[in-house]
Amino acid sequence: MARIAVLGAGVMGTALTYPLADNGHEVHLIGTHLDEELIAACRTTGAHPGLNSVLPPNVRCFPIGELDEALDGIDVIALGVNSRGVHWAGQILAPHLRPGQPVIMVTKGLAADADGALCILPDLLSTKLPPSLRGTVPIAAIGGPSIAAELAARRPTCVVFTCSDTVVLDYLAGLFVTDYYQIWTSTDMIGVEVCVALKNLYALGVGLVPGLLEKANEDQRVPGATMHNFAAALFAQGLVETARLVQLLGGSIESVFSLPGAGDLYVTCQGGRNSRMGRLLGLGLTPAAAAGQLAGETIEGVDAVKVIAPAIEQLIRRGVLEPDAFPLLRQIYGVAVEGRPFEASFDRFFQPATMAVRSAAGVTSSPASHVKQALQ
Amino acid sequence: MARIAVLGAGVMGTALTYPLADNGHEVHLIGTHLDEELIAACRTTGAHPGLNSVLPPNVRCFPIGELDEALDGIDVIALGVNSRGVHWAGQILAPHLRPGQPVIMVTKGLAADADGALCILPDLLSTKLPPSLRGTVPIAAIGGPSIAAELAARRPTCVVFTCSDTVVLDYLAGLFVTDYYQIWTSTDMIGVEVCVALKNLYALGVGLVPGLLEKANEDQRVPGATMHNFAAALFAQGLVETARLVQLLGGSIESVFSLPGAGDLYVTCQGGRNSRMGRLLGLGLTPAAAAGQLAGETIEGVDAVKVIAPAIEQLIRRGVLEPDAFPLLRQIYGVAVEGRPFEASFDRFFQPATMAVRSAAGVTSSPASHVKQALQ
Repeated sequence: MARIAVLGAGVMGTALTYPLADNGHEVHLIGTHLDEELIAACRTTGAHPGLNSVLPPNVRCFPIGELDEALDGIDVIALGVNSRGVHWAGQILAPHLRPGQPVIMVTKGLAADADGALCILPDLLSTKLPPSLRGTVPIAAIGGPSIAAELAARRPTCVVFTCSDTVVLDYLAGLFVTDYYQIWTSTDMIGVEVCVALKNLYALGVGLVPGLLEKANEDQRVPGATMHNFAAALFAQGLVETARLVQLLGGSIESVFSLPGAGDLYVTCQGGRNSRMGRLLGLGLTPAAAAGQLAGETIEGVDAVKVIAPAIEQLIRRGVLEPDAFPLLRQIYGVAVEGRPFEASFDRFFQPATMAVRSAAGVTSSPASHVKQALQ
Repeated sequence: MARIAVLGAGVMGTALTYPLADNGHEVHLIGTHLDEELIAACRTTGAHPGLNSVLPPNVRCFPIGELDEALDGIDVIALGVNSRGVHWAGQILAPHLRPGQPVIMVTKGLAADADGALCILPDLLSTKLPPSLRGTVPIAAIGGPSIAAELAARRPTCVVFTCSDTVVLDYLAGLFVTDYYQIWTSTDMIGVEVCVALKNLYALGVGLVPGLLEKANEDQRVPGATMHNFAAALFAQGLVETARLVQLLGGSIESVFSLPGAGDLYVTCQGGRNSRMGRLLGLGLTPAAAAGQLAGETIEGVDAVKVIAPAIEQLIRRGVLEPDAFPLLRQIYGVAVEGRPFEASFDRFFQPATMAVRSAAGVTSSPASHVKQALQ
């Protein structure tokens, strides 16, 4: 039995308490300052308002004001704050951390500096720790398809835990694994974390298609009920670009076509906030109007593209990337941030993921001459 | 303008006539002996019974009895027969083919010999041609997400044409490309064709999940409405196994995470015969009973697994593959052919795609110790 604290009482952080509690661990769920109402509700009703399940009895809920008590004697900290909260989490956790005490993150995103250098969130968290802890606190992360409400309902879920330290990895996996929460392990932190960061963004892109179809049907420009071919092309282009960024940052392509990449993008396209945001944007709403209809919800895909797209532009400016790199990601930025209409620039899609892949495979690629014109 | 014959008047073969006709080519749609009623209907009504669209005016329909007339002066033959018809097509086309006349296939599947050696269908077709034509008739193929009815409705569709001869590839792509039918080209015939062959099979696997969920809900074992995490895990495992087979046969991994692999599997999971078959099997119907409910429809995923699973067993027996290779494919064979219940053998899932990928990536893999027990 271990003592585990989960910081961040959103749906995903809270869902993680179920396998931990079912394994008999003592689990402390700690709300951030944004979670005061959620923690109050959990304490009053025994259930999280965002999850349709009663919390296990061995989960204790704490507001942020009781952080000291909540972290006392804790073996492992799971971090479920959103991507904007990593800096804050590093500062608030630092006084409580000791060397060798693992932190495992479900936070999704990437960080970028002014030159466009991208950094995975476990590395960002590490830089926010005091020098004495940097490198001595092992930081792990979770990727793969996991809708929080399904995990809390104890339905079959398969994820990947990633950490550079395989001993820590095995220890953490052993704490969390249950018959319904299956865990594979990978040392490819970059690959897993890039996939995790990009899936909401590309799910928003795939989600544009139902909106575009509804709009086209209203205008009577396109007959019929489905446009799955188009959605599938954007799904594939999302993975091609994910592979590109994974390889650019030094990760493994294997993460792209397994649970962290393809699996997580698939599940994220089955509905949820990012898909709904995509549909509203596809219908032609401005980013502000679309966000208004999803009031109060964090749209992680928008947060992600706001960080990553400017970094990509910087990398292009610096000559690190070719001028037409990441066409779908940049389109999504235009639509979801700048309010521009979506234009599928198919002539720039489906380029080989990287020169390395291209030369290894001997694959030729899409001559622009086969692309008559951009759609719509 | 070219003269192009499409042999096989199923929905996909027929849908291909739309971009060709829209480009002003003379198009001959030739039914096989299985398509007599379809061709009669096309001639009478001007529309294909399986597609909700009127045929373009420059498409002429021919029954198989008028093959000689239909193939007279033809520049390119597109082959839309099903996987069982390749041998027959080779024999019937041979007298009409001349060196340099391209054939492009939308037929999906793989062939296997008694030792388990697997072969892509363009190579199978080549062996069915007389020696004088073998190697002189360029054979190309089409992969990627393309629901026939959407193509016939001229909705945005992105596919990959593959051929070892890049001049032929560019010629063919130029004949077919329209603003709604976007074509990328690849010389990775093995990668594309393996993806094409496996997508129906794994879509059937993903389709099991809604059936399993309905069944579980009936038994009141699982609360709630969705089991997307489970479906996404099977989707990812399908791609991992696809990558394994692509690399085993010498194809490129890039085809797996782009249009032919991830894109086509995604679109095939959006409904259709293979998904419906999966759901019925997940509900617990026997293969015969499930097929009965889909009477008259070819379930390509079942056809594919009947060929590929025994070949995999042969390759394991011969030591070419490890004993626990392709666990999902073999599970699907058990469920869809042998009528066994589905058991997600998660302890064997998500192994690295190949040793080559593993060693290149430095990725550790799923220790079985993290897998408590197989689900259900």
